[in-house]
Amino acid sequence: MSLQLTILGCHSATPRVNAYPTSQYLEINNRHFLIDCGEGTQRQMRKYKVGFSKINHIFISHLHGDHFFGLIGLISTFGILNREKELHIYGPKGIEEVTKLQLKLSMSHVRYSIVFHELTSKKSELIFEDDKVSVRTIPLNHRVYTNGFLFTEKPKTRHLHLDNIKQYDEIEICDYHNLKAGKDFILSSGEIIPNAELTVSPEAPKSYAYCSDTTFKPDIIPIIKNVDLLYHESTFLKELEHLCERTKHSTAEQAATIAKEANAGKLILGHYSSRYSDVTCFKEEAETVFNNVELGEVGKKYTTIKSCKQLVN
Amino acid sequence: MSLQLTILGCHSATPRVNAYPTSQYLEINNRHFLIDCGEGTQRQMRKYKVGFSKINHIFISHLHGDHFFGLIGLISTFGILNREKELHIYGPKGIEEVTKLQLKLSMSHVRYSIVFHELTSKKSELIFEDDKVSVRTIPLNHRVYTNGFLFTEKPKTRHLHLDNIKQYDEIEICDYHNLKAGKDFILSSGEIIPNAELTVSPEAPKSYAYCSDTTFKPDIIPIIKNVDLLYHESTFLKELEHLCERTKHSTAEQAATIAKEANAGKLILGHYSSRYSDVTCFKEEAETVFNNVELGEVGKKYTTIKSCKQLVN
Repeated sequence: MSLQLTILGCHSATPRVNAYPTSQYLEINNRHFLIDCGEGTQRQMRKYKVGFSKINHIFISHLHGDHFFGLIGLISTFGILNREKELHIYGPKGIEEVTKLQLKLSMSHVRYSIVFHELTSKKSELIFEDDKVSVRTIPLNHRVYTNGFLFTEKPKTRHLHLDNIKQYDEIEICDYHNLKAGKDFILSSGEIIPNAELTVSPEAPKSYAYCSDTTFKPDIIPIIKNVDLLYHESTFLKELEHLCERTKHSTAEQAATIAKEANAGKLILGHYSSRYSDVTCFKEEAETVFNNVELGEVGKKYTTIKSCKQLVN
Repeated sequence: MSLQLTILGCHSATPRVNAYPTSQYLEINNRHFLIDCGEGTQRQMRKYKVGFSKINHIFISHLHGDHFFGLIGLISTFGILNREKELHIYGPKGIEEVTKLQLKLSMSHVRYSIVFHELTSKKSELIFEDDKVSVRTIPLNHRVYTNGFLFTEKPKTRHLHLDNIKQYDEIEICDYHNLKAGKDFILSSGEIIPNAELTVSPEAPKSYAYCSDTTFKPDIIPIIKNVDLLYHESTFLKELEHLCERTKHSTAEQAATIAKEANAGKLILGHYSSRYSDVTCFKEEAETVFNNVELGEVGKKYTTIKSCKQLVN
């Protein structure tokens, strides 16, 4: 399994005993990312056994408290735990100033480096890339400057077909790298063994799109087209759609419409308004539009199911 | 009962699933104060049914995260809850700048006024006073500028002795105010009825001292002398006393020594280091010095017991 999402919190801002503001832990292609960091996130990480030392990159969508107020506590705790590795933080302009001011006032002993990547662009941009994963912003429409994030696996190397390879004594372990990269093998006789005989195709790269907080914003669809797993906020049900424009949030139906139009594999809902004590109606509403919907639930893990991808478009 | 303390969190900084950083809710003479505000305090307030609207004064001892990082979330939530009343915040210099910066970045809709009382003095000073309660700082010795707080009830008015009062037709309800204030009553005949015949003494004013975080600091004893209820941090047991100087914390024995020398009524321990999974040994250590000790426990309520006050001094 190359992609797994753990929801650490998926409620909106008003605190309740059993509600947790937004934070998610994404494992993708052996990379580990934290997405948003509402108050209490570090405690949720402990509870759901997210290794603190695995987190090297934190992505903050916007600076509303229910997505951000847990960051300074986590940064301080990394210091208490004697972290030495660099920590990269991606978020709106201002995140560096406020974090540094809090560290200065608390005289926190943070011996590791924090590298801030402040975001200001209103266009989608590549903000992280290594040999395993890339991350792009998804410009959203909220009351403050906000980005979602698209996490995409890099294409994987081909798998060796060892039974077939063994038919050729000339192919040695040192040749495997080229075979995985898709190259044919040329025997000393000059005969060309097609790569397709020696390897099998890897799994298609997987992707995850995080879209919170935002109004219904169809222009994000080209950015997240064919995404395997989509989290889209659904603060309200359709009956309260009139609140969306003022508060800059979405309904479950709107989230499902984005999922359908983007040909997403699966939709996860979340960021439910505190006025709803039972959120099953969010799933029901979304399912009138899109057929693979799961409710975001604190502590639950989610993965991609390619077979469920819709066949439209 | 005129004084009741609820511990919302009493653990030190390292987060664990069942540990909560420092925060306390004090009800004293019909006033309601929040003391320190570690991350997650607003959730603890919900859990232990502390009315958000009752809190008009928050006292922050120092700007370490485990005493302070929950403040901005609580301030924001007050805004979400449409608070209109002024909120007074008492804490070290810098608290205003960092709070305002966070509010600006999050564009939080806080329509109520926040009045900051920034503290810089290294001497004990009166920082709050009304007709019911006064609050003084207790200068402590920690790695950053830190104050404890002494909350003292104002002397109460005398209670009316109605059976005796009814013996005198001339005494009317409008005279009660003077009687409660201790004045004698003069009959039209010129006869003086001593106040002691018409009223009984009120309960003695109660007091609570909050001392965290700090090294062993005997010069606070004159400030908290005869306090009814004392919370004093006890991060370590005596076996780790050598860590106190570097970390600027205290042992349970040292906390008990302060309680004994101050002739406190009761001592509450807390701020236990995360290395101790069982904290009963803190009580045992303190009881070798002082005989009325309770362990600080999350969610537990504490009150004063005058009869337990030691008879030394």
